[in-house]
Amino acid sequence: MSIEKGNIKDKLQKFSDHWNPKIIGELNGQHVKLSKFKGEFIWHKHDNEDELFLVISGSFVMELRDKNIELKEGDFIIIPKGTEHRPVAAEEVHVLLFEPANTVNTGDQTSDLTKQELEKI
Amino acid sequence: MSIEKGNIKDKLQKFSDHWNPKIIGELNGQHVKLSKFKGEFIWHKHDNEDELFLVISGSFVMELRDKNIELKEGDFIIIPKGTEHRPVAAEEVHVLLFEPANTVNTGDQTSDLTKQELEKI
Repeated sequence: MSIEKGNIKDKLQKFSDHWNPKIIGELNGQHVKLSKFKGEFIWHKHDNEDELFLVISGSFVMELRDKNIELKEGDFIIIPKGTEHRPVAAEEVHVLLFEPANTVNTGDQTSDLTKQELEKI
Repeated sequence: MSIEKGNIKDKLQKFSDHWNPKIIGELNGQHVKLSKFKGEFIWHKHDNEDELFLVISGSFVMELRDKNIELKEGDFIIIPKGTEHRPVAAEEVHVLLFEPANTVNTGDQTSDLTKQELEKI
């Protein structure tokens, strides 16, 4: 397999849909993903996966049951497994995710927002 | 454990040494690290760990045995386990790393550059 570089901004230009993470890399059984958030997601948790969110541009609020955390460009947060959370973005925000390859976006919940098969870009 | 956010640029201001990665997060047995590169590292490989490099600012060249790849801001590359590589930075560059928590920076090589105990910032 030939080793090639990728570019975050180039990858972000390849899609426009919200709440539908795209896979941009895989290593050690983990996926690196990009997603665009806008609006309110659903409350959910991941029973077995910790999840990292890193803001590439824009801002959003990570709602937790005991507090809300606003994340701006360059901010990151790790949501430990089992922790209920809900991302809410008043305006579109671009986010890098790092999580195990089997992670489902809506965790323990199933809804119209659930994406089972993610596109690799 | 209380969940707190971090900021990449704030973390980068906490250290100035080169080739000495700092741990900024841990999830799923993986570490998220920041490092500042300047100059030439050594040729090495990681026998069991894939390694991701994402350029936060600046640029560097990832030398592989069959080609060199220049990485600029926003560029990322995954070096698969077993692949010899050597990062070279003409000027200081700030890099985010994702890799398993047990990854040693010089891989299968031991040198003055080897860091066994990484600081968490």
